[in-house]
Amino acid sequence: MNLVVIGIGLIGGSFAKDAKKIHPDAHIIGIDKSESHLDEALELGIIDEKGDYDVLASADVVFVSIPVNALMVELPKILDAVGDDTVVMDAGSTKGLICEVVNDHPKRRNFLACHPIAGTEFSGPSAAINGLYEGKTNIICEVEKTAFKLQERALELFQQMKMRIRYMNPQAHDKHIAYVSHLSHISSFMLGKTVIEKEKNERDIFDLAGSGFESTVRLAKSSPDMWTPIFEQNKENVVESLQEYIQNLETFKQLLLDNEFDDVYQEMNNTNRIKQILKGIPLTKS
Amino acid sequence: MNLVVIGIGLIGGSFAKDAKKIHPDAHIIGIDKSESHLDEALELGIIDEKGDYDVLASADVVFVSIPVNALMVELPKILDAVGDDTVVMDAGSTKGLICEVVNDHPKRRNFLACHPIAGTEFSGPSAAINGLYEGKTNIICEVEKTAFKLQERALELFQQMKMRIRYMNPQAHDKHIAYVSHLSHISSFMLGKTVIEKEKNERDIFDLAGSGFESTVRLAKSSPDMWTPIFEQNKENVVESLQEYIQNLETFKQLLLDNEFDDVYQEMNNTNRIKQILKGIPLTKS
Repeated sequence: MNLVVIGIGLIGGSFAKDAKKIHPDAHIIGIDKSESHLDEALELGIIDEKGDYDVLASADVVFVSIPVNALMVELPKILDAVGDDTVVMDAGSTKGLICEVVNDHPKRRNFLACHPIAGTEFSGPSAAINGLYEGKTNIICEVEKTAFKLQERALELFQQMKMRIRYMNPQAHDKHIAYVSHLSHISSFMLGKTVIEKEKNERDIFDLAGSGFESTVRLAKSSPDMWTPIFEQNKENVVESLQEYIQNLETFKQLLLDNEFDDVYQEMNNTNRIKQILKGIPLTKS
Repeated sequence: MNLVVIGIGLIGGSFAKDAKKIHPDAHIIGIDKSESHLDEALELGIIDEKGDYDVLASADVVFVSIPVNALMVELPKILDAVGDDTVVMDAGSTKGLICEVVNDHPKRRNFLACHPIAGTEFSGPSAAINGLYEGKTNIICEVEKTAFKLQERALELFQQMKMRIRYMNPQAHDKHIAYVSHLSHISSFMLGKTVIEKEKNERDIFDLAGSGFESTVRLAKSSPDMWTPIFEQNKENVVESLQEYIQNLETFKQLLLDNEFDDVYQEMNNTNRIKQILKGIPLTKS
């Protein structure tokens, strides 16, 4: 199998590692705008060689894991360069604009719009880990627009990586993911900001913060290069979720101010249901 | 050593387990308003026997781990019942009102106001784990009001449990902890509420949520019985931190609405410093 990974960081690098494990004979070519990332990926044995878009014509599978703003520019060029029998899949955290930008491309049938719900707060080739995708959900959009035999090739690979497949339309994906992913990142970033602003002396945070705080602000370590364009592309849904979140915080604050502690209790008690909901979410053992 | 643990859940149970490991000859008596918790603690071997306040007179160490509203009522009664050579320590997440309520107690010198920054989102005796306190910070308030030899006894135990000791006044504790602990719980509870409200079909959350979401809402599993009185007692600081948090979220939302994505990037980039800050926080391996 000729696999080309465009964007060889945490997501692309982990995909390459799993692919190599499943297909030891796979030849993996890495493409990245960062030379140092490519060198690092080579040293780490994540890729077999560096390449450019010229290699796309003979690729069986192209996995594109670059920021979603770059995807808007590169995806059409990538499709221009691939062969008739190449399947191109992305890993973007937004789907609406990305499906739109390639919708009328003559090689639309070569593209499978994907969003594997997997990752960590780290980035770069050194953050790539084995088994990142195991047990994780991979959302596929507009599957009917992809050539059937290319769907099959992609799905076989996903199944070998033990991913759970879910089909959605891009609009539903972007709306839902704003709540369960994009909003979490904003709440985490702003929590980190609030505490840092207050605790000018970081030593105090260090001493008083426990694992609960660490867990809640973990996502504030995430890459702004990756997340800014996601928020830009999914602005409408993100703002809506953010507005509802702020409203819930305001309500909670008002209950405190009004000494309505029975209601404060109920707010938390009702949300404890999250225990059952979360039971099904596989954690990344990194 | 005669150790009495009042409130034999996650915090008290874990304390008892470590104490038994360090002092195999220790006799541990459990007191709890829940008979079933006491029976469970006995079955699990966390305590040697059940007891009541009559046993306090002959105790060397009394560890009180009950909700902070119960502490306000029970702590004076506990001090009434203890012997001259007994040291009583609490584990409350607030310190101001608790130090106040016993300030003029004739046995104030027998009390050491503590807050070990340790825990998980679970509760009850079955949630008790070994080594919960290892490497964690234990904040001690008004240490000068505790009899010196009783301080020594308590500190020896804390050191054997490998806790890091930090001395603060109750007001500073309550202000700082509102930011690094209490606020995290509210942000997490309200994030959970926002997503649950939106996703009436929980199957969608289950499918789309990743480990990032799981980490950010983990604290929303916490016990409302424990947290409602904490928010009540630390209301002023909690509301202040919540207001600043909401303001930061509003600012972020406005940047999105105004398409100021360079500023959105900067907001996240500045908060990435949290990486370095968090490096020092020991995680609970449960």
